[in-house]
Amino acid sequence: MSGNTFGKNFKLTTFGESHGDAIGGVIDGCPAGILIDLDFIQTELDRRKPGQSKIVTQRKESDKVQFFSGIFEGKTTGTPIGFMIPNENKKSQDYDHLKDFFRPSHADFTYQQKYGYRDFRGGGRSSARETACRVVGGAIAKQIINSISIQAYVSSVGNISLTKNYNELDLTLIESNDVRCPDFEVANQMENLIKDLKKNGDTIGGIITCVIKNVPIGLGNPVFDRLEAELAKAMLSINASKGFEFGSGFDGTTMFGSQHNDYFNVDGTTKTNYSGGIQGGISNGMDIYFRVAFKPVATLLQKQEMLSVLGELKEIEGRGRHDACVLPRAVPIVEAMAALVLADFII
Amino acid sequence: MSGNTFGKNFKLTTFGESHGDAIGGVIDGCPAGILIDLDFIQTELDRRKPGQSKIVTQRKESDKVQFFSGIFEGKTTGTPIGFMIPNENKKSQDYDHLKDFFRPSHADFTYQQKYGYRDFRGGGRSSARETACRVVGGAIAKQIINSISIQAYVSSVGNISLTKNYNELDLTLIESNDVRCPDFEVANQMENLIKDLKKNGDTIGGIITCVIKNVPIGLGNPVFDRLEAELAKAMLSINASKGFEFGSGFDGTTMFGSQHNDYFNVDGTTKTNYSGGIQGGISNGMDIYFRVAFKPVATLLQKQEMLSVLGELKEIEGRGRHDACVLPRAVPIVEAMAALVLADFII
Amino acid sequence: MSGNTFGKNFKLTTFGESHGDAIGGVIDGCPAGILIDLDFIQTELDRRKPGQSKIVTQRKESDKVQFFSGIFEGKTTGTPIGFMIPNENKKSQDYDHLKDFFRPSHADFTYQQKYGYRDFRGGGRSSARETACRVVGGAIAKQIINSISIQAYVSSVGNISLTKNYNELDLTLIESNDVRCPDFEVANQMENLIKDLKKNGDTIGGIITCVIKNVPIGLGNPVFDRLEAELAKAMLSINASKGFEFGSGFDGTTMFGSQHNDYFNVDGTTKTNYSGGIQGGISNGMDIYFRVAFKPVATLLQKQEMLSVLGELKEIEGRGRHDACVLPRAVPIVEAMAALVLADFII
Amino acid sequence: MSGNTFGKNFKLTTFGESHGDAIGGVIDGCPAGILIDLDFIQTELDRRKPGQSKIVTQRKESDKVQFFSGIFEGKTTGTPIGFMIPNENKKSQDYDHLKDFFRPSHADFTYQQKYGYRDFRGGGRSSARETACRVVGGAIAKQIINSISIQAYVSSVGNISLTKNYNELDLTLIESNDVRCPDFEVANQMENLIKDLKKNGDTIGGIITCVIKNVPIGLGNPVFDRLEAELAKAMLSINASKGFEFGSGFDGTTMFGSQHNDYFNVDGTTKTNYSGGIQGGISNGMDIYFRVAFKPVATLLQKQEMLSVLGELKEIEGRGRHDACVLPRAVPIVEAMAALVLADFII
Repeated sequence: MSGNTFGKNFKLTTFGESHGDAIGGVIDGCPAGILIDLDFIQTELDRRKPGQSKIVTQRKESDKVQFFSGIFEGKTTGTPIGFMIPNENKKSQDYDHLKDFFRPSHADFTYQQKYGYRDFRGGGRSSARETACRVVGGAIAKQIINSISIQAYVSSVGNISLTKNYNELDLTLIESNDVRCPDFEVANQMENLIKDLKKNGDTIGGIITCVIKNVPIGLGNPVFDRLEAELAKAMLSINASKGFEFGSGFDGTTMFGSQHNDYFNVDGTTKTNYSGGIQGGISNGMDIYFRVAFKPVATLLQKQEMLSVLGELKEIEGRGRHDACVLPRAVPIVEAMAALVLADFII
Repeated sequence: MSGNTFGKNFKLTTFGESHGDAIGGVIDGCPAGILIDLDFIQTELDRRKPGQSKIVTQRKESDKVQFFSGIFEGKTTGTPIGFMIPNENKKSQDYDHLKDFFRPSHADFTYQQKYGYRDFRGGGRSSARETACRVVGGAIAKQIINSISIQAYVSSVGNISLTKNYNELDLTLIESNDVRCPDFEVANQMENLIKDLKKNGDTIGGIITCVIKNVPIGLGNPVFDRLEAELAKAMLSINASKGFEFGSGFDGTTMFGSQHNDYFNVDGTTKTNYSGGIQGGISNGMDIYFRVAFKPVATLLQKQEMLSVLGELKEIEGRGRHDACVLPRAVPIVEAMAALVLADFII
Repeated sequence: MSGNTFGKNFKLTTFGESHGDAIGGVIDGCPAGILIDLDFIQTELDRRKPGQSKIVTQRKESDKVQFFSGIFEGKTTGTPIGFMIPNENKKSQDYDHLKDFFRPSHADFTYQQKYGYRDFRGGGRSSARETACRVVGGAIAKQIINSISIQAYVSSVGNISLTKNYNELDLTLIESNDVRCPDFEVANQMENLIKDLKKNGDTIGGIITCVIKNVPIGLGNPVFDRLEAELAKAMLSINASKGFEFGSGFDGTTMFGSQHNDYFNVDGTTKTNYSGGIQGGISNGMDIYFRVAFKPVATLLQKQEMLSVLGELKEIEGRGRHDACVLPRAVPIVEAMAALVLADFII
Repeated sequence: MSGNTFGKNFKLTTFGESHGDAIGGVIDGCPAGILIDLDFIQTELDRRKPGQSKIVTQRKESDKVQFFSGIFEGKTTGTPIGFMIPNENKKSQDYDHLKDFFRPSHADFTYQQKYGYRDFRGGGRSSARETACRVVGGAIAKQIINSISIQAYVSSVGNISLTKNYNELDLTLIESNDVRCPDFEVANQMENLIKDLKKNGDTIGGIITCVIKNVPIGLGNPVFDRLEAELAKAMLSINASKGFEFGSGFDGTTMFGSQHNDYFNVDGTTKTNYSGGIQGGISNGMDIYFRVAFKPVATLLQKQEMLSVLGELKEIEGRGRHDACVLPRAVPIVEAMAALVLADFII
């Protein structure tokens, strides 16, 4: 019945519901003596924050994190880091009309069936609000693994896709637009699509690409706890994610072995990198890159048929705040989860 | 440094190298009092066995499993089940010429770097031979979760793909051909492609689709240990796998929320199933279906450039036995890993 | 480097230092739908609280716990329960003179050596203040296992010991005196001893006995995770504890097998209970009873020789607040840890 | 239902029943590149072996261990070490008369109640035969932590006790007599007591003392996974153990803090060592010493009243092979478990 801890060595445990008093967590296993940049943590949270731009949900949350322990005079002590983010904009009454209904493609029905009892306010525990705690954990993890760079960006929204590979793009541009796509023209198209859908109360999915550079050789534990397996678990644990591929991924299935094999240079690097930086479950020092699919958000500002706890179907008007597309806000979450995976193998 | 155990409740730990004396494992957490069909376990092993048909590797292994404990008078006792499969066809000398070389896109290089020391014979621990132990574990798991059906099949080999969805296919045909594709015509094309490549010493990748029916509602532990996250980890832990998607997957990223949402019937089932049987990390009782991408096998029977431990590149002729396409033999492995995931949540 | 989580199924993770902003924790794995009596939790905290009587430390802490999640409309939801207890009486400056010194028989030296960096204020993480979070976890655990009764009491302080067994005592009297010893006369002697030592700035150890009744048959997982092994770990994880024995314990080593064996009644109960309610690592339904040894508190209000970080010895006067004997306050902690062990096996 | 794995980093999983085909296990997490002395492992097994002297059970087992994996050309590879010990002297028929009976103070009753089904032959999984696998794991662990010395000895059998402390004894004498007591005169008395009891078919308990020297500073993870807590769990997981105390232990409860505190020398060592080498859950570099209580063996070669599965009491004559006192054979088991605990923290 548990499942709220990620990692075996660098462990993040999170708690909190969307409209409870607070969300928060504990990081256990953080090495001692690491200088922690609290401003950086807040900056990461701001990248995930609602209301950060016109194309995301307008829920009002400052998402200010408070630390209770584990950091003393600016440095980690090796003891658990407890933290909390108050829920400022909780509006239970916004959800009273949904109390007895299961929204389609949400967790309402499955939580009710599994637990027999649920906090129905805004999805309760199943809300993506929980991912703010992952961003806190990831921002600390990034400071542990700090020579490694992790960069994620939106590579498609609906049918609008980047056609270039990550190494043909200028990744310093990711944060220069609201969509977090490092190509202005494509970003612009994505933004327009999202705005149009927002007007209609509809939503759209997309794909995030993540690139990890300067990875030390040797991360990953075969046979089950391979690096790619842990990354896959991490990414599929993010709300609304539907798929994961690394290196050549699904496209690589159509290649011949003689094309796909990555031949060595004398220094141990490889001439190509279809392997995506991982061989036999262990990093080989080349760039790790992977893609994560996200479905369209299930919350619509449209009339939708819902199922009542009594087994009746009823059309109910969606209302309130929503993301027409989670991709821009999911970028820091993907990075955070990648950082947690890497920290878990490194410490 | 560990990583050889899968599962938290129904736990499979495996051991063994490709050319050591034996491979084997321990299943801990198996409920007591379950009648175990040993013939079924052997049948499952035979589906993965080398030499089972002309399109797979001709390594000679009978893959007979011996059980040491945990089963008494035909029934499980709740104590750990220890088992062993002897390696009959170990030929260390076949690999002596590779002792000081790293094959491209294999684990040779990363194992050497991580552990500083490796069993180079046939890939040692990184060989897919280890997956026989997963099939043993999965075959027992299937007997624990026996009302649930798990069926995997080859849905593409290279560019040859099934165009029909799983519910348009006759899944009883899966085992009727060597490729394990439930459409004779497509299977025939796949088989021909594999045979052609085998002649050239080349290899090809492909995709396996897996369908799970009669799933109880409520499996999966949000937020990190979601059902789809555990399935993703399980699938990406299989040798040569490169991607995982469930339900609408990557294609679903181009849909609108108004199209993608699965509306309810009054009995709690849904009219469509883009969710792939999982909502909020928890099974909703609908079919679970997912796809796993496999890269082309890295072992080629061609001349290939390899890196020596001294940092020199040298062309070496591939020789011996190999799979031109792992897909047919990977089908029971995908099923086994799915069974292990489900058993872990059910017991 | 971690180690701040107790339990595998019902998991308590704690955080917090003695003089940081707050201590707290997360309970993961709590079943859904359990009515939680918040007043009971506070009552348990009050039993551990400083300042509760004249014989304990006079640090001023109201120890009011705040819950953030996992409880909705009075019932558990199956999601993690996050909680926090503010540190009200933190006085960093009280410890400035100890910043560069290691107190004898404290964790100052070992924390410094292990982590290279430490929060020196009042012992930081090594302070027994952390156990307040265990009491919160235990108070919830008690409500999960509510048909089972757990009663601990002080059975010796220094050389003053109860001579009667638990079943010859009236356990309803435990809370009727400040020492938590269910025999007024003995309690009185213990109290006088503690008061005398308090005047001298000295301390004393003692023994707590714990009795668990109405235990279901079948708790405990051989071979390593035996019920007695988990209880032993739980008890030895409490600050200042030095030993654990259950059933006949150390005294039982002098008995013959023919005396020690517990012969059955026809209903499966036993005529004697030297086994202490556990056979083969599994509860047999009889009372579980065990004893935990506690050393004298290391903090003295006397002049003591300490080691500086520079390797110099110096006499420093102890000052401030202290417990002359931890036993009375340790009673609810022993109970809490026992409850956590039982809940972990039951859920 | 699991519980057959010890350790989090250096993990030993065991399997096997007393009269099944074999017992065995897997060690996962062993570092790579360690030279393994297989003869030493066998020597350790021989110290635990039945039939090694006149005062232990005469069951005939050569206890030869076979390794399947993880060791290549004499060195560990970092992959799991699978091993097996055949049961040579299994005699199922010796136990047919006990099939429907629960022996007093054995695990027969609790296993039947917990699992509903059990291997009744010689205690099945609950037999101390399983501990041979711990000795294998411990013998490898000892080679990992090889600068640390672990020495256990029998310090009491029944009422016959060593009165000297470990540092007043010549520990090189431990293996010089059958009892494993490093004082000839006391050993002789113990041996005579055991022989007398053996004649009567009765049994006796005792205490093992264990001393660990050359311990690095910093082992142990507060707050729950303290070094002493893990040692306590390890020791209480051994069959027939009833108690654990370290350092001053139960006797220390009668001391004043001013007597009990271990004052520092300038080099960080302490003048006394009541702490038993552990402060705040972390080793401080001083000797670790602890004592483990063992009850008298429950198997008697006398007529005893047993409970049938139908709820009837019947006197049954004990027969076959038995240990009148487990202490001599438990010495290497205590050492093995201590080695496993230390290896788990060190690697």
